[in-house]
Amino acid sequence: MTGALAIAGLGPGAEALVTPEVAEALAEATDVVGYFPYVARVPERPGLTRHASDNRVELDRARLALDLAAAGRRVVIVSSGDPGVFAMASAVFEALEAALEDAPDYGHLPIRVLPGITAMLAAAARAGAPLGHDFCAINLSDNLKPWALIERRLRAAAEADFAIALYNPRSKARPEGFARALDLLRETCGPERLVTFARAVTTPEERIETVTLGAARPEMADMRTVVLIGSSATRRVVGHVYTPRQAS
Amino acid sequence: MTGALAIAGLGPGAEALVTPEVAEALAEATDVVGYFPYVARVPERPGLTRHASDNRVELDRARLALDLAAAGRRVVIVSSGDPGVFAMASAVFEALEAALEDAPDYGHLPIRVLPGITAMLAAAARAGAPLGHDFCAINLSDNLKPWALIERRLRAAAEADFAIALYNPRSKARPEGFARALDLLRETCGPERLVTFARAVTTPEERIETVTLGAARPEMADMRTVVLIGSSATRRVVGHVYTPRQAS
Repeated sequence: MTGALAIAGLGPGAEALVTPEVAEALAEATDVVGYFPYVARVPERPGLTRHASDNRVELDRARLALDLAAAGRRVVIVSSGDPGVFAMASAVFEALEAALEDAPDYGHLPIRVLPGITAMLAAAARAGAPLGHDFCAINLSDNLKPWALIERRLRAAAEADFAIALYNPRSKARPEGFARALDLLRETCGPERLVTFARAVTTPEERIETVTLGAARPEMADMRTVVLIGSSATRRVVGHVYTPRQAS
Repeated sequence: MTGALAIAGLGPGAEALVTPEVAEALAEATDVVGYFPYVARVPERPGLTRHASDNRVELDRARLALDLAAAGRRVVIVSSGDPGVFAMASAVFEALEAALEDAPDYGHLPIRVLPGITAMLAAAARAGAPLGHDFCAINLSDNLKPWALIERRLRAAAEADFAIALYNPRSKARPEGFARALDLLRETCGPERLVTFARAVTTPEERIETVTLGAARPEMADMRTVVLIGSSATRRVVGHVYTPRQAS
């Protein structure tokens, strides 16, 4: 078994944010596996097979990648952002755990995670430094967890005065979740708290907008948006939004 | 005023994790400003002036960078990791806010934040995917905030079952803080919870070790360590530590 698997983060969109480590892994790969818009970011070349799949089949995709690596291929699974933040790395380790039941030798596969610029950090950089002090990252998608847990974490984060990054704010399946999250945050943090909506960050469709919680509307976000809620200390200076290092 | 300021993240240490965007900004800079070990990562070349300073003079350093940019220089402030995560970006916006009182034209300076791979994401990648679900980042340095606030945030994060990344776990000024944090976490999360100590990640001195909270000792961390506390769902699969996407 001479194959290997890398789980690589392509960053939020701009090629200038792909690390040399990831570029090198892609240049040496025999197989690239991933959700089709991410696979499309890897150009075709001789010797490379691209395996694009639909969304929400993470475990199947992870198992395919493990099988290819076990067959001796140099496989790269591509994620947007960072593979360890609401992306493919966890799915691969879940699939590995399941695969070990019928294929115990998969435990010897070399697996590396190659970090990338996750959306909240690219969004924060564009806005200024809204995550400049203690912060939380919460995935609002409730495909895999109950809404009660999301609400408990939102409330804990707001009450302890963290800045908060919300990933996947509006899923098609449960569009009302984000409206409830905004209500909860408005109630806990008050209407003056700053909120940045960062859509398609670092791509040609990028749109960054900062408003108060009082003015925030659910339809300002879609599935390509990451939402950054400030802490009580977050403020504006000229065109920038930032959270000072000093606690309020 | 034709100068400009970029606040750039050099990533955790390895050159393969410096983004092309940051490499390009450094190649075009006339001046690099920063804490001396980070400035030392930028090679000398004709036309580049390197301004290295000691730690804990962030505001002076930020003001120097603003003054140089206002004088027409192309200035890059370098941070390790991501400049927006417990690094220089917030300090620059604080310094800008203060500078506007005596130099209102500084409000027109073009300032860009260039994101980088922050330590917790590089550490998580090396360990597996311990931050694969909702997580918090907390700076244990209490130079700028009261310990009571740190404790409140730790408790909130643990009670809401976030994974937790701790930055600057042991400061020379207050070495007992991390011991207190471990006690609080052990009490809230129990002794079986997994903890990863990641020191000098991606450098030749890298050391990654995962133990339980019951076995964790304060001296396992120093100022070059980032500490990742798992959620209740975090577990091991062969040599990897990961948090599944599914809530426990």
